[in-house]
Amino acid sequence: MSTTSSSPFKFHGTNDRDVAGSQLVAAYLAVRQHSEQLCSPLLTEDYGLQAMPSTSPAKWHLAHTTWFFETFLLKPYAPDYQVFHRDFEYLFNSYYNGIGRLFPRHQRGLLSRPTVTEVYEYRRHVDAALSKLLDAMPPSDSEDITARLELGCHHEQQHQELLLTDLKYCWFQNPLYPAYREAPLPVSESPQALTWQNFDAQLQAIGHNIRDGFCFDNEIPRHQQYVEGFRIANRLVSNGEFLEFMADGGYEQPDLWLADGWAALSSNETARSQPLSPLYWQQRDGRWMEYTLHGMAELDPNLPACHLSAYEADAFARWKGCRLPTEFEWEVSSANHPVGPARQTTATQRLVHPHSAGGSTLKNDLTGSLWQWTSSAYSPYPGYKTAAGALGEYNGKFMANQLVLRGGSVATSPGHYRHSYRNFFYPPDQWQFTGVRLAQSL
Amino acid sequence: MSTTSSSPFKFHGTNDRDVAGSQLVAAYLAVRQHSEQLCSPLLTEDYGLQAMPSTSPAKWHLAHTTWFFETFLLKPYAPDYQVFHRDFEYLFNSYYNGIGRLFPRHQRGLLSRPTVTEVYEYRRHVDAALSKLLDAMPPSDSEDITARLELGCHHEQQHQELLLTDLKYCWFQNPLYPAYREAPLPVSESPQALTWQNFDAQLQAIGHNIRDGFCFDNEIPRHQQYVEGFRIANRLVSNGEFLEFMADGGYEQPDLWLADGWAALSSNETARSQPLSPLYWQQRDGRWMEYTLHGMAELDPNLPACHLSAYEADAFARWKGCRLPTEFEWEVSSANHPVGPARQTTATQRLVHPHSAGGSTLKNDLTGSLWQWTSSAYSPYPGYKTAAGALGEYNGKFMANQLVLRGGSVATSPGHYRHSYRNFFYPPDQWQFTGVRLAQSL
Amino acid sequence: MSTTSSSPFKFHGTNDRDVAGSQLVAAYLAVRQHSEQLCSPLLTEDYGLQAMPSTSPAKWHLAHTTWFFETFLLKPYAPDYQVFHRDFEYLFNSYYNGIGRLFPRHQRGLLSRPTVTEVYEYRRHVDAALSKLLDAMPPSDSEDITARLELGCHHEQQHQELLLTDLKYCWFQNPLYPAYREAPLPVSESPQALTWQNFDAQLQAIGHNIRDGFCFDNEIPRHQQYVEGFRIANRLVSNGEFLEFMADGGYEQPDLWLADGWAALSSNETARSQPLSPLYWQQRDGRWMEYTLHGMAELDPNLPACHLSAYEADAFARWKGCRLPTEFEWEVSSANHPVGPARQTTATQRLVHPHSAGGSTLKNDLTGSLWQWTSSAYSPYPGYKTAAGALGEYNGKFMANQLVLRGGSVATSPGHYRHSYRNFFYPPDQWQFTGVRLAQSL
Amino acid sequence: MSTTSSSPFKFHGTNDRDVAGSQLVAAYLAVRQHSEQLCSPLLTEDYGLQAMPSTSPAKWHLAHTTWFFETFLLKPYAPDYQVFHRDFEYLFNSYYNGIGRLFPRHQRGLLSRPTVTEVYEYRRHVDAALSKLLDAMPPSDSEDITARLELGCHHEQQHQELLLTDLKYCWFQNPLYPAYREAPLPVSESPQALTWQNFDAQLQAIGHNIRDGFCFDNEIPRHQQYVEGFRIANRLVSNGEFLEFMADGGYEQPDLWLADGWAALSSNETARSQPLSPLYWQQRDGRWMEYTLHGMAELDPNLPACHLSAYEADAFARWKGCRLPTEFEWEVSSANHPVGPARQTTATQRLVHPHSAGGSTLKNDLTGSLWQWTSSAYSPYPGYKTAAGALGEYNGKFMANQLVLRGGSVATSPGHYRHSYRNFFYPPDQWQFTGVRLAQSL
Repeated sequence: MSTTSSSPFKFHGTNDRDVAGSQLVAAYLAVRQHSEQLCSPLLTEDYGLQAMPSTSPAKWHLAHTTWFFETFLLKPYAPDYQVFHRDFEYLFNSYYNGIGRLFPRHQRGLLSRPTVTEVYEYRRHVDAALSKLLDAMPPSDSEDITARLELGCHHEQQHQELLLTDLKYCWFQNPLYPAYREAPLPVSESPQALTWQNFDAQLQAIGHNIRDGFCFDNEIPRHQQYVEGFRIANRLVSNGEFLEFMADGGYEQPDLWLADGWAALSSNETARSQPLSPLYWQQRDGRWMEYTLHGMAELDPNLPACHLSAYEADAFARWKGCRLPTEFEWEVSSANHPVGPARQTTATQRLVHPHSAGGSTLKNDLTGSLWQWTSSAYSPYPGYKTAAGALGEYNGKFMANQLVLRGGSVATSPGHYRHSYRNFFYPPDQWQFTGVRLAQSL
Repeated sequence: MSTTSSSPFKFHGTNDRDVAGSQLVAAYLAVRQHSEQLCSPLLTEDYGLQAMPSTSPAKWHLAHTTWFFETFLLKPYAPDYQVFHRDFEYLFNSYYNGIGRLFPRHQRGLLSRPTVTEVYEYRRHVDAALSKLLDAMPPSDSEDITARLELGCHHEQQHQELLLTDLKYCWFQNPLYPAYREAPLPVSESPQALTWQNFDAQLQAIGHNIRDGFCFDNEIPRHQQYVEGFRIANRLVSNGEFLEFMADGGYEQPDLWLADGWAALSSNETARSQPLSPLYWQQRDGRWMEYTLHGMAELDPNLPACHLSAYEADAFARWKGCRLPTEFEWEVSSANHPVGPARQTTATQRLVHPHSAGGSTLKNDLTGSLWQWTSSAYSPYPGYKTAAGALGEYNGKFMANQLVLRGGSVATSPGHYRHSYRNFFYPPDQWQFTGVRLAQSL
Repeated sequence: MSTTSSSPFKFHGTNDRDVAGSQLVAAYLAVRQHSEQLCSPLLTEDYGLQAMPSTSPAKWHLAHTTWFFETFLLKPYAPDYQVFHRDFEYLFNSYYNGIGRLFPRHQRGLLSRPTVTEVYEYRRHVDAALSKLLDAMPPSDSEDITARLELGCHHEQQHQELLLTDLKYCWFQNPLYPAYREAPLPVSESPQALTWQNFDAQLQAIGHNIRDGFCFDNEIPRHQQYVEGFRIANRLVSNGEFLEFMADGGYEQPDLWLADGWAALSSNETARSQPLSPLYWQQRDGRWMEYTLHGMAELDPNLPACHLSAYEADAFARWKGCRLPTEFEWEVSSANHPVGPARQTTATQRLVHPHSAGGSTLKNDLTGSLWQWTSSAYSPYPGYKTAAGALGEYNGKFMANQLVLRGGSVATSPGHYRHSYRNFFYPPDQWQFTGVRLAQSL
Repeated sequence: MSTTSSSPFKFHGTNDRDVAGSQLVAAYLAVRQHSEQLCSPLLTEDYGLQAMPSTSPAKWHLAHTTWFFETFLLKPYAPDYQVFHRDFEYLFNSYYNGIGRLFPRHQRGLLSRPTVTEVYEYRRHVDAALSKLLDAMPPSDSEDITARLELGCHHEQQHQELLLTDLKYCWFQNPLYPAYREAPLPVSESPQALTWQNFDAQLQAIGHNIRDGFCFDNEIPRHQQYVEGFRIANRLVSNGEFLEFMADGGYEQPDLWLADGWAALSSNETARSQPLSPLYWQQRDGRWMEYTLHGMAELDPNLPACHLSAYEADAFARWKGCRLPTEFEWEVSSANHPVGPARQTTATQRLVHPHSAGGSTLKNDLTGSLWQWTSSAYSPYPGYKTAAGALGEYNGKFMANQLVLRGGSVATSPGHYRHSYRNFFYPPDQWQFTGVRLAQSL
């Protein structure tokens, strides 16, 4: 599959048990290095920011992902492992009640100590111990270790995306509007005309096929789902189209909004000195600007509209006489397309804003540009089972009040895209790279 | 069907257009009288209580349901109708932004004026005008009028249930714990043994069949749904079983809880001086009491556990190694059973607490005892369309963040039960008559 | 003194011990009847309103003042007294922790039971028992009983004023804007020119002289205070003058405001759809209206500006190049003037809005029109001592974060005015009848 | 006076106009260097912490004090001054509305940029420009410049104390409990017996004598105050004595507490997993620990009780049958004692916790150990005038809702103590070095 070559981490599958320890170490270290490479534009002061409870400091992401390997691999499987610091079990546990007490999430930005340097030392310490473990796995544990290693690497990849989205949110609070990438966004071209692809009603197989390698537990069991006839757009909604919605009074018409969305709008309105708009938009002298990880820039109508809440996405769709797709529709519609960004680039050159790829602008944004809100509540698939122990807290306990997003974004790590991938956030959340693909019932 | 005889309102269906105006008036007045009969135990002071934003005063329910008929029938169809009071359009609009501004919901308890007497006069005024309209419907409008009348009557029935649940919540704040029914709860018997009924995987038709008469727009279109094999319990979970969950530390084990439920628990804990328990339970001298509309009473382990949040319901099910049913499973499992309470009683004799019916205790509680939380998010059925205009706000805009409940409760009005009925509340909500029926995947 | 004749309660002083029981009963009943007379315009529904935690329902005021006599007189001194209801000790305790648990203040509006009728029965029960006690006081207790009776009567008079101000605040939430007095406000005349009275610096005796009869404990000990030279205005600030302040951008200039006041303004701004103004002002079609207990009326520029917070009062004074007086300056300036409203009227005819009295408009408003904010923090006088037991909670524990107001208002009960009277509220409070008298340092 | 020698900044007074520019530069730089010396134990990550809105990051203190000199000296008096960064006027304005918009106070911790290095560069930039200005003052401006320079230096000294108290509060949120000084607290000795000094009633002169050099505008005009007879304790209340208060149920007896204090206690109780205690106390295995800037240490009963709110101070005093002194009593009682800490030390050796000095333990703690809560509201002295323009916002606008503290603490900068010094905080504030000296009326 097309993603294999670009994936720093891909060994799961039918032959997993034959993977040599050295290959595991290499795959592991590639993921680890990617996290640190993502931090290369950060100054020491940037590592500690936490602008809202949902965002975590970069330093915390670096430490927590390390904690994950320490907690679920080194402590149970490396008998002579010495913990780096006795308080880190408490400080860097995110939400695993099964492990013990949790340092309060909203206070993560108050941990000036351990310092950035100490966190990197922690990473080195765990990397060394884990490499040693992988090089000499006891056969009886090798299957468990490999599975947990794989989970840990995908876990760290998830935090790689959060590291970028959290940083963007935090920097946006600063009137200096720091840029993560100095390079400006490239010139864009007009999006393609919006066209539709039709799908007839039929019984569909939904979910990950476990023969295709790793997936999270929320993507299985693969099961039957009757999907009514629908059609789905060939591309994402653009900034230009969202501006039309705004010009038409989209934010002022309650009949376009879900009741909870309208209520959220009303309460937000007072907090903003600006007219209502997607997150990161700002009006200056009558022109719309957009804060991006490439700095504050004039809003480009050709680019996909991003950082929309599910309420904004839904209201826009309603205004267009459309609706959001279900997650099943999305999965059916994507089945025959490759996943991941169209253009492979090195990590440091990669754009971190949805962008136009060659002449086709929004063509290849099925995955790799923006996560796309679906209308599907994040629920267990029929027959879903959580793992035993603290690892069982990984996904299942979040299956309430959230919506599924599909597709992957420019901030998603290479090798982390899947057709069956179920991302999930609360409807009001805006700080992820989220957009809209329109759908209609046939 | 067994419900027909007890229903004060049932004329929709294939022959609706032939229903005479006098029959419509009679059906309408029966619903209206039922609302007022429900208020007969209330004293003037009770009509104005609002203990939280989600609850409304009884007086407001009486006025708002009247406003509904005035707004959607008299104003558009009765040309010479004189409004009772020019400010009532504003005061008693619940959430119809399409009609105009809304008096703030959380301040409904602050309206000492209009008085209870004036609200009853308002009802008389609208009843008279509507009876006159129905007696002489212009043929061109008769279909619309009949449909809106039917909707308005079902709307008032929904408020009849809220009137009871809201009153219960408000009275519970008063240390005098008033009783709505002076008659004590009858002696109960042990619940049946818990047994299971199995259902094989198959494609199922879900939703209301419009040939069977009235339904709300959220129950249609009837559509295909592939339902995996499952089994479902023969009865509701009892207080005794819930006490076992508590005795086993159910409220203290985070792995039993959805993350949002656990968070809600933690924030509630500080507000309660009591050990955690379902709403309306109180511990006195080591014994559990339960506040009911029949007064404060010793908790009866034989009765169904009620006033559970979806989080409590889900945690209990997990503790039992089970899960909540989906709304589709519930509908499939109920298809061959009559709906509504087993024992027909007059309105004033009717118990307003889940109760044992003869020797079989919890046997006939599929409907008519407690609303049962499902794991299904409240979403539109495939092809769902809202009505045009303000009536389109009736259901659709609430399809976010809520869960579907099925079954109907002791507080549901006679004639208001349906197999396809989709009630919906937020997962933390506890003040409705809500319970649990367990399910498992096969 | 002029107040004596109109006072329903005045027997304290050098000869108190000679007052016959029948005189005590008469004085007591006069106060009690005044409370009930104040409620005569109320309908049953009005008795239960509580629009914010600081306001209490009229029913609660009627019951709590009764509780005071029951708790501090009947229970300790009437050995065979039977309580009216065992739960009332808990329900109607305001803030006396020394007596026992407190029903939560912000939930007083949720007590539909006891009903209004029952509260009046409670009053009759206590009145009868207290009359019996006073008619046959044991000589050993007579001094204590008389002192507590006097305190209880003045306590009830305080609640008489609150009953009116709380009701006004609650009714203002209702778009029907009920009127307490049907009679409209009389025609006003222009206020006098603002003139100043000068006072030289000197040592002054401050506080109540206990030979002059009853006072609260916070008015003593009478003590020496060095008061620097100052001058004080002959009348209150008028609505017309406050409109000039607003027209000059008074609400938009931070340098006019105390920091806490400016912050309060900013947070309130979002809650108001209207331009900033004193409480109860509303702009309609470009004209200012004012809600009064005589109904919604056009704002009269001749009348004193009222319902100002201390922040508004202070900002206005600063804008005028003046300041608020200290409570000592106020007391010095008022020493040679009679207290109480200029024109005596019967309770039912009395205006409950500051008004013009004859040709002199604002002349006689030193007392009897509006409470006047002073710049003095509410602190104990040197040598201040609280009473032993729960009665010690009457005043002393509130001596933090509040400011002293002096003068008395149109809502103050006859016989309740004193030169040394120290009323106290928090600086943001607006719902009392509060205004401004300007001062300057010499 | 004894403080002169240790003061890095002292040139105001009768001969101020003769002070040479070079002397001004030296005095200015001494203050500036002290700020930076205080930061020497900080790591880059520590500079950005803000744990509550009332605390500011160290980096912000360094920048804001620089902004003060730039705004009030360089911009108006140095015609060719080039601002360091155009956004700093907005970013580092604290509360001077007269200068322009304010960056939101509670978000100061979110400014990762400018970096610590850039803030130090900003300091160098302003230091150079200011030195140049002082070296060549135009005679017409020299008086204004000198006065503003003096104010700016005292302003920076105020922030030096806040820098320490804010850092302490922020570090306390971190379970690693960093130490600012590695040296442990020295061994203590028992406090002296508590004795009283009596003062007769008399007219007293209160406030700063402007012939004695610099003071803030809130310390003048010097004026007459009649102070009743009182007595005051020879030392501060100790931890041991406060433990007795706690052991006697001091935190559980509402009659000891001001009403607002008791309410604050109740709401805090739920937030703490620990028994109620002063801020920074923690119970571990039944023993009390105290977090200090010298690290977490066992609570020393000999040391003065510190970080008390005014409510705690007042409750303790009441429990002892005493009261807090007024600010006038404090000033009278301190008149004949030197101010400042008894033992002069270098800045880096100085303890930053109240401590025992030789055999006399708490003897010399009139000033230099803890700020002492008084019962006096922070109000203007008679005839108080604020400066024109934005500098008028320095003190006056805070004269509401706060109490005066007197004495100075271990965190107060040398040369910043004065008998007439009026510090002010809100009654609930605990994060300053605050304690209690008892008083009684005679």
